[in-house]
Amino acid sequence: MDEARPLLIERHGIDGRPHTVFAADTDAQARQPGESFLQGHGHGAHVMRERSSRGKDMTAPTIQPWPRIASRHGEDLHVFRPRWDMVQNPRTRAQMERVVCETPDWVNVVAFTPERELVMIRQYRFGTERVELEIPGGLIDPGETPESSAVRELEEETGYAAARWTSLGSVAPNPAYQDNRCWHFLAEGAVPAGDQDLDPGEDIAVEVMSTEQVMEAIRSGAISHALCITALSHVLDLRSQ
Amino acid sequence: MDEARPLLIERHGIDGRPHTVFAADTDAQARQPGESFLQGHGHGAHVMRERSSRGKDMTAPTIQPWPRIASRHGEDLHVFRPRWDMVQNPRTRAQMERVVCETPDWVNVVAFTPERELVMIRQYRFGTERVELEIPGGLIDPGETPESSAVRELEEETGYAAARWTSLGSVAPNPAYQDNRCWHFLAEGAVPAGDQDLDPGEDIAVEVMSTEQVMEAIRSGAISHALCITALSHVLDLRSQ
Repeated sequence: MDEARPLLIERHGIDGRPHTVFAADTDAQARQPGESFLQGHGHGAHVMRERSSRGKDMTAPTIQPWPRIASRHGEDLHVFRPRWDMVQNPRTRAQMERVVCETPDWVNVVAFTPERELVMIRQYRFGTERVELEIPGGLIDPGETPESSAVRELEEETGYAAARWTSLGSVAPNPAYQDNRCWHFLAEGAVPAGDQDLDPGEDIAVEVMSTEQVMEAIRSGAISHALCITALSHVLDLRSQ
Repeated sequence: MDEARPLLIERHGIDGRPHTVFAADTDAQARQPGESFLQGHGHGAHVMRERSSRGKDMTAPTIQPWPRIASRHGEDLHVFRPRWDMVQNPRTRAQMERVVCETPDWVNVVAFTPERELVMIRQYRFGTERVELEIPGGLIDPGETPESSAVRELEEETGYAAARWTSLGSVAPNPAYQDNRCWHFLAEGAVPAGDQDLDPGEDIAVEVMSTEQVMEAIRSGAISHALCITALSHVLDLRSQ
Protein backbone atom coordinates (compact mmCIF):
# COMPACT_ATOMS: atom_id res chain seq x y z
CA MET A 1 0.00 0.00 0.00
CA ASP A 2 3.03 2.29 0.00
CA GLU A 3 2.17 3.85 -3.37
CA ALA A 4 -1.27 4.69 -2.05
CA ARG A 5 0.01 6.78 0.88
CA PRO A 6 -1.66 10.16 1.23
CA LEU A 7 -0.47 13.56 0.28
CA LEU A 8 -0.54 16.12 3.01
CA ILE A 9 -4.08 16.46 4.28
CA GLU A 10 -5.82 19.64 3.20
CA ARG A 11 -6.00 22.19 5.98
CA HIS A 12 -9.12 24.25 6.18
CA GLY A 13 -9.39 25.23 9.83
CA ILE A 14 -10.97 23.32 12.69
CA ASP A 15 -14.33 24.79 11.79
CA GLY A 16 -14.03 23.81 8.11
CA ARG A 17 -17.34 24.16 6.26
CA PRO A 18 -18.33 22.04 3.26
CA HIS A 19 -17.37 24.83 0.84
CA THR A 20 -13.71 24.51 1.78
CA VAL A 21 -11.17 22.78 -0.44
CA PHE A 22 -11.16 19.01 -0.25
CA ALA A 23 -8.94 16.34 -1.68
CA ALA A 24 -10.79 15.69 -4.93
CA ASP A 25 -10.94 19.43 -5.77
CA THR A 26 -7.24 19.76 -5.16
CA ASP A 27 -6.60 16.85 -7.45
CA ALA A 28 -8.69 18.41 -10.19
CA GLN A 29 -6.89 21.74 -9.86
CA ALA A 30 -3.49 20.04 -9.91
CA ARG A 31 -4.26 17.78 -12.87
CA GLN A 32 -2.69 18.67 -16.19
CA PRO A 33 -4.62 18.43 -19.47
CA GLY A 34 -4.28 14.90 -20.81
CA GLU A 35 -3.29 13.35 -17.47
CA SER A 36 -5.28 10.19 -16.95
CA PHE A 37 -6.67 8.13 -14.10
CA LEU A 38 -5.13 4.86 -13.02
CA GLN A 39 -8.06 2.88 -11.78
CA GLY A 40 -8.38 -0.30 -9.74
CA HIS A 41 -4.98 0.25 -8.14
CA GLY A 42 -4.21 -1.08 -4.67
CA HIS A 43 -7.27 -2.52 -2.92
CA GLY A 44 -9.62 -1.18 -5.55
CA ALA A 45 -8.95 2.44 -4.62
CA HIS A 46 -8.92 5.00 -7.40
CA VAL A 47 -5.47 6.40 -7.94
CA MET A 48 -4.56 9.30 -10.13
CA ARG A 49 -1.31 10.94 -11.09
CA GLU A 50 -1.03 14.49 -9.91
CA ARG A 51 1.56 17.08 -9.04
CA SER A 52 2.36 17.90 -5.44
CA SER A 53 2.66 21.47 -4.23
CA ARG A 54 6.38 21.20 -4.92
CA GLY A 55 5.69 20.43 -8.58
CA LYS A 56 6.83 16.80 -8.52
CA ASP A 57 4.62 14.10 -9.96
CA MET A 58 3.18 11.96 -7.19
CA THR A 59 0.67 9.16 -7.17
CA ALA A 60 -2.04 9.54 -4.59
CA PRO A 61 -5.47 8.05 -4.04
CA THR A 62 -8.40 10.19 -4.91
CA ILE A 63 -12.14 9.89 -4.75
CA GLN A 64 -14.44 11.78 -7.09
CA PRO A 65 -17.63 13.58 -6.09
CA TRP A 66 -20.83 11.81 -7.15
CA PRO A 67 -22.83 13.94 -9.60
CA ARG A 68 -26.34 14.74 -8.38
CA ILE A 69 -28.76 14.04 -11.24
CA ALA A 70 -32.04 15.07 -9.61
CA SER A 71 -33.58 15.82 -6.19
CA ARG A 72 -37.01 15.68 -4.54
CA HIS A 73 -38.07 16.38 -0.96
CA GLY A 74 -39.87 14.02 1.40
CA GLU A 75 -42.21 14.75 4.33
CA ASP A 76 -40.90 17.51 6.61
CA LEU A 77 -39.81 15.87 9.89
CA HIS A 78 -39.37 19.15 11.88
CA VAL A 79 -35.87 18.32 13.17
CA PHE A 80 -34.81 17.93 9.53
CA ARG A 81 -36.19 17.73 5.99
CA PRO A 82 -35.41 14.64 3.91
CA ARG A 83 -34.23 15.14 0.33
CA TRP A 84 -33.97 12.29 -2.13
CA ASP A 85 -30.99 12.69 -4.46
CA MET A 86 -30.44 10.63 -7.59
CA VAL A 87 -26.64 10.27 -7.70
CA GLN A 88 -24.15 8.49 -9.95
CA ASN A 89 -21.31 6.29 -8.67
CA PRO A 90 -18.17 7.52 -10.52
CA ARG A 91 -16.63 4.04 -10.11
CA THR A 92 -19.46 1.97 -11.59
CA ARG A 93 -21.54 4.69 -13.35
CA ALA A 94 -24.57 3.17 -11.62
CA GLN A 95 -27.27 5.66 -10.64
CA MET A 96 -29.03 5.27 -7.31
CA GLU A 97 -31.26 7.21 -4.95
CA ARG A 98 -29.81 8.38 -1.64
CA VAL A 99 -31.53 10.28 1.14
CA VAL A 100 -29.98 13.42 2.62
CA CYS A 101 -31.45 15.02 5.75
CA GLU A 102 -31.35 18.80 5.45
CA THR A 103 -30.67 19.62 9.09
CA PRO A 104 -30.03 22.94 10.87
CA ASP A 105 -26.67 23.31 12.58
CA TRP A 106 -26.43 22.47 16.27
CA VAL A 107 -24.26 23.81 19.08
CA ASN A 108 -23.09 22.51 22.44
CA VAL A 109 -21.04 23.90 25.30
CA VAL A 110 -18.28 22.61 27.57
CA ALA A 111 -18.90 24.94 30.54
CA PHE A 112 -16.45 25.17 33.45
CA THR A 113 -17.26 26.82 36.77
CA PRO A 114 -14.55 29.00 38.39
CA GLU A 115 -13.66 25.86 40.42
CA ARG A 116 -13.02 24.04 37.12
CA GLU A 117 -16.04 21.78 37.47
CA LEU A 118 -18.30 21.01 34.52
CA VAL A 119 -21.91 22.18 34.16
CA MET A 120 -23.85 19.11 33.00
CA ILE A 121 -27.52 18.44 32.31
CA ARG A 122 -29.82 15.45 32.51
CA GLN A 123 -32.84 15.16 30.25
CA TYR A 124 -35.16 12.49 28.94
CA ARG A 125 -34.37 11.79 25.30
CA PHE A 126 -37.02 10.52 22.91
CA GLY A 127 -34.60 8.70 20.60
CA THR A 128 -32.97 6.47 23.19
CA GLU A 129 -35.97 6.65 25.58
CA ARG A 130 -33.72 7.11 28.57
CA VAL A 131 -32.51 9.97 30.75
CA GLU A 132 -29.21 11.09 29.22
CA LEU A 133 -26.36 12.91 30.95
CA GLU A 134 -25.13 15.56 28.51
CA ILE A 135 -23.58 18.99 28.11
CA PRO A 136 -25.89 21.93 27.35
CA GLY A 137 -26.72 22.60 23.71
CA GLY A 138 -29.37 22.74 21.04
CA LEU A 139 -30.47 23.99 17.66
CA ILE A 140 -28.98 27.15 16.17
CA ASP A 141 -31.95 29.39 15.42
CA PRO A 142 -32.32 31.09 12.00
CA GLY A 143 -30.17 34.22 11.88
CA GLU A 144 -28.22 33.23 14.99
CA THR A 145 -24.43 32.74 15.00
CA PRO A 146 -23.05 29.57 16.58
CA GLU A 147 -21.53 31.75 19.32
CA SER A 148 -24.77 33.55 20.26
CA SER A 149 -26.62 30.24 20.15
CA ALA A 150 -24.09 28.73 22.57
CA VAL A 151 -24.47 31.63 25.03
CA ARG A 152 -28.28 31.41 24.80
CA GLU A 153 -28.48 27.62 25.17
CA LEU A 154 -26.21 27.60 28.25
CA GLU A 155 -28.38 30.27 29.92
CA GLU A 156 -31.75 28.75 28.91
CA GLU A 157 -30.91 25.17 29.83
CA THR A 158 -28.86 25.75 33.00
CA GLY A 159 -29.30 29.36 34.19
CA TYR A 160 -25.50 29.72 34.03
CA ALA A 161 -23.65 32.58 32.33
CA ALA A 162 -19.94 32.44 31.50
CA ALA A 163 -17.15 35.02 31.60
CA ARG A 164 -15.00 33.68 28.71
CA TRP A 165 -16.00 31.94 25.46
CA THR A 166 -13.70 30.04 23.09
CA SER A 167 -14.55 28.20 19.87
CA LEU A 168 -13.66 24.50 19.88
CA GLY A 169 -14.46 24.08 16.17
CA SER A 170 -17.12 21.77 14.86
CA VAL A 171 -17.88 18.22 13.73
CA ALA A 172 -20.17 16.71 11.11
CA PRO A 173 -22.70 14.64 13.10
CA ASN A 174 -23.15 12.22 10.19
CA PRO A 175 -21.63 13.03 6.79
CA ALA A 176 -23.35 9.97 5.28
CA TYR A 177 -26.80 11.57 5.29
CA GLN A 178 -26.83 14.81 7.30
CA ASP A 179 -25.63 18.12 5.86
CA ASN A 180 -25.20 19.93 9.16
CA ARG A 181 -22.45 20.61 11.66
CA CYS A 182 -22.38 20.70 15.47
CA TRP A 183 -20.34 23.62 16.80
CA HIS A 184 -18.49 23.15 20.07
CA PHE A 185 -17.72 25.97 22.51
CA LEU A 186 -15.72 26.29 25.70
CA ALA A 187 -17.29 28.51 28.38
CA GLU A 188 -15.13 29.41 31.38
CA GLY A 189 -16.04 31.10 34.61
CA ALA A 190 -19.63 29.85 34.37
CA VAL A 191 -21.77 30.85 37.37
CA PRO A 192 -25.50 30.72 38.17
CA ALA A 193 -27.02 33.92 36.76
CA GLY A 194 -30.75 33.29 36.71
CA ASP A 195 -33.45 30.70 36.28
CA GLN A 196 -33.68 28.12 33.56
CA ASP A 197 -35.88 29.16 30.63
CA LEU A 198 -37.14 25.84 29.30
CA ASP A 199 -39.38 25.45 26.28
CA PRO A 200 -42.43 23.13 26.33
CA GLY A 201 -40.33 20.32 24.85
CA GLU A 202 -37.73 20.39 27.64
CA ASP A 203 -37.41 19.15 31.22
CA ILE A 204 -33.81 19.51 32.32
CA ALA A 205 -31.89 18.97 35.59
CA VAL A 206 -28.56 20.74 36.09
CA GLU A 207 -25.59 19.03 37.77
CA VAL A 208 -22.10 20.32 38.45
CA MET A 209 -19.54 17.53 38.24
CA SER A 210 -15.80 17.20 38.57
CA THR A 211 -13.78 16.33 35.45
CA GLU A 212 -13.04 12.95 37.07
CA GLN A 213 -16.76 12.25 37.44
CA VAL A 214 -17.37 13.19 33.81
CA MET A 215 -14.51 10.98 32.59
CA GLU A 216 -15.88 8.09 34.65
CA ALA A 217 -19.37 8.75 33.24
CA ILE A 218 -17.98 8.48 29.69
CA ARG A 219 -16.12 5.27 30.57
CA SER A 220 -19.22 3.73 32.18
CA GLY A 221 -21.56 4.72 29.33
CA ALA A 222 -23.62 7.08 31.52
CA ILE A 223 -22.57 9.77 29.01
CA SER A 224 -23.12 8.23 25.59
CA HIS A 225 -24.19 11.10 23.32
CA ALA A 226 -21.54 11.14 20.61
CA LEU A 227 -21.63 14.93 20.15
CA CYS A 228 -21.07 15.53 23.87
CA ILE A 229 -18.05 13.23 23.73
CA THR A 230 -16.55 15.01 20.69
CA ALA A 231 -16.90 18.33 22.54
CA LEU A 232 -15.50 16.96 25.83
CA SER A 233 -12.57 15.35 23.97
CA HIS A 234 -11.20 18.91 23.63
CA VAL A 235 -10.70 19.17 27.41
CA LEU A 236 -10.45 15.54 28.66
CA ASP A 237 -8.02 12.77 27.74
CA LEU A 238 -10.49 9.99 26.88
CA ARG A 239 -8.02 7.25 25.95
CA SER A 240 -8.94 3.76 27.13
CA GLN A 241 -6.22 2.03 25.08
CA MET B 1 -26.43 24.30 43.38
CA ASP B 2 -24.79 22.19 46.10
CA GLU B 3 -28.04 20.48 47.00
CA ALA B 4 -28.48 19.46 43.38
CA ARG B 5 -25.18 17.53 43.16
CA PRO B 6 -25.44 14.07 41.66
CA LEU B 7 -25.48 10.71 43.30
CA LEU B 8 -23.00 8.24 41.99
CA ILE B 9 -23.56 7.79 38.30
CA GLU B 10 -25.14 4.45 37.38
CA ARG B 11 -22.61 2.04 35.92
CA HIS B 12 -23.86 -0.19 33.15
CA GLY B 13 -20.73 -1.03 31.19
CA ILE B 14 -19.12 0.92 28.38
CA ASP B 15 -21.42 -0.81 25.93
CA GLY B 16 -24.56 0.07 27.94
CA ARG B 17 -27.75 -0.57 25.97
CA PRO B 18 -30.99 1.38 26.46
CA HIS B 19 -32.44 -1.49 28.49
CA THR B 20 -29.82 -1.02 31.19
CA VAL B 21 -30.55 0.75 34.45
CA PHE B 22 -30.62 4.52 34.23
CA ALA B 23 -31.03 7.27 36.74
CA ALA B 24 -34.80 7.61 36.68
CA ASP B 25 -35.29 3.83 37.04
CA THR B 26 -32.96 3.80 40.00
CA ASP B 27 -34.94 6.59 41.59
CA ALA B 28 -38.16 4.68 41.11
CA GLN B 29 -36.66 1.53 42.59
CA ALA B 30 -35.17 3.39 45.56
CA ARG B 31 -38.30 5.40 46.31
CA GLN B 32 -40.34 4.39 49.32
CA PRO B 33 -44.16 4.30 49.22
CA GLY B 34 -45.44 7.76 50.06
CA GLU B 35 -42.17 9.56 49.28
CA SER B 36 -42.94 12.67 47.28
CA PHE B 37 -41.30 14.86 44.67
CA LEU B 38 -39.86 18.29 45.42
CA GLN B 39 -40.37 20.19 42.23
CA GLY B 40 -39.01 23.41 40.85
CA HIS B 41 -35.91 23.25 43.02
CA GLY B 42 -32.64 24.88 41.99
CA HIS B 43 -32.71 26.29 38.49
CA GLY B 44 -36.02 24.68 37.72
CA ALA B 45 -34.63 21.16 37.97
CA HIS B 46 -36.86 18.47 39.38
CA VAL B 47 -35.53 17.12 42.65
CA MET B 48 -36.78 14.10 44.51
CA ARG B 49 -35.89 12.55 47.84
CA GLU B 50 -34.42 9.10 47.54
CA ARG B 51 -32.19 6.74 49.42
CA SER B 52 -28.61 6.20 48.41
CA SER B 53 -27.12 2.73 48.11
CA ARG B 54 -25.94 3.12 51.71
CA GLY B 55 -29.54 3.64 52.89
CA LYS B 56 -29.19 7.33 53.81
CA ASP B 57 -31.73 9.85 52.59
CA MET B 58 -30.21 12.08 49.95
CA THR B 59 -31.65 14.76 47.72
CA ALA B 60 -30.71 14.42 44.08
CA PRO B 61 -32.03 15.79 40.84
CA THR B 62 -34.12 13.48 38.74
CA ILE B 63 -35.85 13.63 35.42
CA GLN B 64 -38.90 11.56 34.63
CA PRO B 65 -39.48 9.62 31.42
CA TRP B 66 -42.08 11.18 29.11
CA PRO B 67 -45.07 8.87 28.63
CA ARG B 68 -45.67 7.92 25.00
CA ILE B 69 -49.39 8.39 24.27
CA ALA B 70 -49.49 7.23 20.65
CA SER B 71 -47.21 6.51 17.68
CA ARG B 72 -47.46 6.49 13.88
CA HIS B 73 -44.83 5.84 11.23
CA GLY B 74 -43.79 8.16 8.40
CA GLU B 75 -42.31 7.39 4.97
CA ASP B 76 -39.52 4.79 5.11
CA LEU B 77 -36.25 6.62 4.40
CA HIS B 78 -34.10 3.46 3.93
CA VAL B 79 -31.33 4.53 6.30
CA PHE B 80 -34.01 4.85 9.00
CA ARG B 81 -37.77 4.85 9.51
CA PRO B 82 -39.38 7.90 11.11
CA ARG B 83 -41.88 7.35 13.91
CA TRP B 84 -44.07 10.14 15.24
CA ASP B 85 -44.62 9.82 18.98
CA MET B 86 -47.20 11.80 20.93
CA VAL B 87 -45.47 12.38 24.28
CA GLN B 88 -46.32 14.23 27.48
CA ASN B 89 -43.96 16.61 29.27
CA PRO B 90 -43.97 15.48 32.94
CA ARG B 91 -43.06 19.05 33.99
CA THR B 92 -45.83 20.93 32.17
CA ARG B 93 -48.23 18.04 31.30
CA ALA B 94 -48.29 19.44 27.77
CA GLN B 95 -48.62 16.86 25.01
CA MET B 96 -46.60 17.23 21.84
CA GLU B 97 -45.50 15.28 18.81
CA ARG B 98 -41.85 14.30 18.49
CA VAL B 99 -40.14 12.39 15.70
CA VAL B 100 -37.94 9.39 16.44
CA CYS B 101 -35.83 7.82 13.68
CA GLU B 102 -35.81 4.03 14.05
CA THR B 103 -32.26 3.38 12.89
CA PRO B 104 -30.21 0.17 12.69
CA ASP B 105 -27.05 0.06 14.78
CA TRP B 106 -23.77 1.06 13.18
CA VAL B 107 -20.20 -0.07 13.73
CA ASN B 108 -16.78 1.41 13.05
CA VAL B 109 -13.20 0.23 13.49
CA VAL B 110 -9.95 1.77 14.75
CA ALA B 111 -7.53 -0.49 12.85
CA PHE B 112 -3.79 -0.48 13.56
CA THR B 113 -1.19 -2.07 11.28
CA PRO B 114 1.65 -4.03 12.94
CA GLU B 115 3.70 -0.79 12.59
CA ARG B 116 1.02 0.98 14.71
CA GLU B 117 -0.27 3.05 11.82
CA LEU B 118 -4.00 3.58 11.26
CA VAL B 119 -6.01 2.19 8.34
CA MET B 120 -8.13 5.10 7.11
CA ILE B 121 -10.56 5.53 4.23
CA ARG B 122 -11.68 8.38 2.01
CA GLN B 123 -15.15 8.40 0.49
CA TYR B 124 -17.56 10.91 -0.99
CA ARG B 125 -20.39 11.50 1.45
CA PHE B 126 -23.83 12.55 0.28
CA GLY B 127 -24.77 14.44 3.46
CA THR B 128 -21.84 16.84 3.53
CA GLU B 129 -21.22 16.57 -0.25
CA ARG B 130 -17.48 16.32 0.24
CA VAL B 131 -14.83 13.61 0.34
CA GLU B 132 -14.49 12.66 4.01
CA LEU B 133 -11.49 11.08 5.70
CA GLU B 134 -12.87 8.43 8.06
CA ILE B 135 -12.26 5.09 9.73
CA PRO B 136 -13.89 1.98 8.20
CA GLY B 137 -17.43 1.16 9.28
CA GLY B 138 -21.04 0.78 8.28
CA LEU B 139 -24.44 -0.65 9.02
CA ILE B 140 -24.83 -3.78 11.16
CA ASP B 141 -26.80 -6.23 9.01
CA PRO B 142 -29.86 -8.04 10.43
CA GLY B 143 -28.73 -11.05 12.49
CA GLU B 144 -25.13 -9.84 12.63
CA THR B 145 -23.30 -9.12 15.90
CA PRO B 146 -21.43 -5.82 16.21
CA GLU B 147 -18.18 -7.83 16.27
CA SER B 148 -18.86 -9.78 13.07
CA SER B 149 -20.04 -6.59 11.38
CA ALA B 150 -16.78 -4.84 12.35
CA VAL B 151 -14.65 -7.67 10.93
CA ARG B 152 -16.73 -7.69 7.72
CA GLU B 153 -16.71 -3.92 7.23
CA LEU B 154 -12.93 -3.68 7.69
CA GLU B 155 -12.38 -6.39 5.08
CA GLU B 156 -14.98 -5.13 2.59
CA GLU B 157 -13.99 -1.47 2.74
CA THR B 158 -10.21 -1.84 3.00
CA GLY B 159 -9.17 -5.43 2.17
CA TYR B 160 -7.43 -5.56 5.57
CA ALA B 161 -7.85 -8.36 8.11
CA ALA B 162 -6.75 -8.01 11.74
CA ALA B 163 -5.16 -10.41 14.21
CA ARG B 164 -6.71 -9.04 17.44
CA TRP B 165 -10.11 -7.47 18.10
CA THR B 166 -11.19 -5.52 21.20
CA SER B 167 -14.52 -3.85 21.96
CA LEU B 168 -14.29 -0.10 22.60
CA GLY B 169 -17.92 0.15 23.73
CA SER B 170 -20.51 2.25 21.94
CA VAL B 171 -22.07 5.69 21.70
CA ALA B 172 -25.55 7.00 20.95
CA PRO B 173 -25.17 8.97 17.69
CA ASN B 174 -28.06 11.25 18.64
CA PRO B 175 -30.24 10.42 21.66
CA ALA B 176 -32.58 13.32 20.79
CA TYR B 177 -34.17 11.51 17.84
CA GLN B 178 -32.23 8.36 16.95
CA ASP B 179 -32.70 5.07 18.80
CA ASN B 180 -29.51 3.39 17.62
CA ARG B 181 -25.93 2.98 18.82
CA CYS B 182 -22.59 3.03 17.03
CA TRP B 183 -20.27 0.27 18.25
CA HIS B 184 -16.54 0.96 18.25
CA PHE B 185 -13.89 -1.73 17.83
CA LEU B 186 -10.12 -1.82 18.03
CA ALA B 187 -8.43 -4.04 15.43
CA GLU B 188 -4.71 -4.69 15.88
CA GLY B 189 -2.24 -6.35 13.56
CA ALA B 190 -4.26 -5.32 10.50
CA VAL B 191 -2.61 -6.34 7.22
CA PRO B 192 -3.74 -6.43 3.56
CA ALA B 193 -5.53 -9.75 3.06
CA GLY B 194 -7.46 -9.36 -0.18
CA ASP B 195 -9.29 -6.96 -2.43
CA GLN B 196 -11.92 -4.47 -1.40
CA ASP B 197 -15.49 -5.71 -1.84
CA LEU B 198 -17.46 -2.51 -2.40
CA ASP B 199 -21.21 -2.36 -2.88
CA PRO B 200 -22.78 -0.23 -5.65
CA GLY B 201 -23.20 2.65 -3.19
CA GLU B 202 -19.51 2.84 -2.29
CA ASP B 203 -16.29 4.20 -3.83
CA ILE B 204 -13.55 4.08 -1.22
CA ALA B 205 -9.82 4.83 -1.16
CA VAL B 206 -7.64 3.28 1.56
CA GLU B 207 -4.84 5.21 3.26
CA VAL B 208 -2.47 4.16 6.02
CA MET B 209 -1.56 7.10 8.25
CA SER B 210 0.53 7.68 11.34
CA THR B 211 -1.25 8.55 14.59
CA GLU B 212 0.33 12.01 14.32
CA GLN B 213 -1.21 12.50 10.87
CA VAL B 214 -4.61 11.42 12.16
CA MET B 215 -4.43 13.77 15.15
CA GLU B 216 -3.46 16.63 12.84
CA ALA B 217 -6.36 15.71 10.52
CA ILE B 218 -8.79 15.95 13.44
CA ARG B 219 -7.30 19.29 14.52
CA SER B 220 -7.50 20.69 10.98
CA GLY B 221 -11.06 19.48 10.37
CA ALA B 222 -10.01 17.06 7.59
CA ILE B 223 -11.53 14.37 9.84
CA SER B 224 -14.86 15.76 10.99
CA HIS B 225 -17.19 12.75 11.26
CA ALA B 226 -18.26 12.78 14.92
CA LEU B 227 -18.49 8.98 15.19
CA CYS B 228 -14.94 8.54 13.88
CA ILE B 229 -13.73 11.01 16.49
CA THR B 230 -15.54 9.23 19.36
CA ALA B 231 -13.89 5.95 18.26
CA LEU B 232 -10.46 7.51 17.82
CA SER B 233 -10.73 9.22 21.23
CA HIS B 234 -10.13 5.74 22.72
CA VAL B 235 -6.59 5.65 21.30
CA LEU B 236 -5.61 9.32 20.78
CA ASP B 237 -5.36 12.19 23.24
CA LEU B 238 -7.49 14.80 21.42
CA ARG B 239 -7.25 17.63 23.93
CA SER B 240 -6.88 21.11 22.43
CA GLN B 241 -7.42 22.91 25.74
